[in-house]
Amino acid sequence: MFDILHRVGIKAATDEVYKSLATPQGVSRWWTTETSGDDKPGGRIRFRFTDHGRELGVFDMRILELHPGKRVAWQVTDGPDEWVGTRVSFDLRQEGDFTIVLFRHEGWKEPVEFMYHCSTKWATFLMSLKSLGETGKGQPSPHDVKVGDWH
Amino acid sequence: MFDILHRVGIKAATDEVYKSLATPQGVSRWWTTETSGDDKPGGRIRFRFTDHGRELGVFDMRILELHPGKRVAWQVTDGPDEWVGTRVSFDLRQEGDFTIVLFRHEGWKEPVEFMYHCSTKWATFLMSLKSLGETGKGQPSPHDVKVGDWH
Repeated sequence: MFDILHRVGIKAATDEVYKSLATPQGVSRWWTTETSGDDKPGGRIRFRFTDHGRELGVFDMRILELHPGKRVAWQVTDGPDEWVGTRVSFDLRQEGDFTIVLFRHEGWKEPVEFMYHCSTKWATFLMSLKSLGETGKGQPSPHDVKVGDWH
Repeated sequence: MFDILHRVGIKAATDEVYKSLATPQGVSRWWTTETSGDDKPGGRIRFRFTDHGRELGVFDMRILELHPGKRVAWQVTDGPDEWVGTRVSFDLRQEGDFTIVLFRHEGWKEPVEFMYHCSTKWATFLMSLKSLGETGKGQPSPHDVKVGDWH
């Protein structure tokens, strides 16, 4: 199994960062504006990505864990083949002025080229989460940073 | 062993992107301004990172491979303990208007928290390489994008 790992430090209260991860409203402000679903463990959450109206992808996830101020974990139940069954998690802790976010997208079966792309995209989305926490404004899809021909 | 993987697409000629990777002058424009050394396989290249004059780190690498327009590979010979012995490589190919860069930082012994940080930093430096290719201006250290308390 292969994992994507990232770490960012956000100058914002841990509870604020947690809210941006634990609710569809929060996630819509840094990952994709088209986020909908639940905010309870066992619930479902759906993320849709478009580019000028053209659908690029839809990811359905089950909410595995919600530990206020500490951890959010999802499991991918529908989406691109390479994503189905993988897990996405965010571990939070306070460190001085920073909320440290340890990010994992775990359980890729093979290190396919799409995984390389997703690794870079996750970094830019985590920088969007950082920007949201520090300035009140993220860069969620469809206003996301483009990293190449695969967007 | 654990690897950091990234993919960016740069709207620039492959030969231009190659030059930014294969020479100390090129690397100094997107990774760290303090880059010096050789431009031949078997040679050495040194990367120094500072923040307001304070030294953050020095990485010495051996140039393993230089395949014009195709691939650059380095091996870390000195630097942070976790980096020594690891390999950094860039594979290039043309795809329509884009030069696709597949990046690997391979051979980490453990997925330590510093690896999470380096994964995110590499993404921002590859976006700096992309910016250099597309606009003529990168964001090398010490003008690099800060991703958290570890810079």
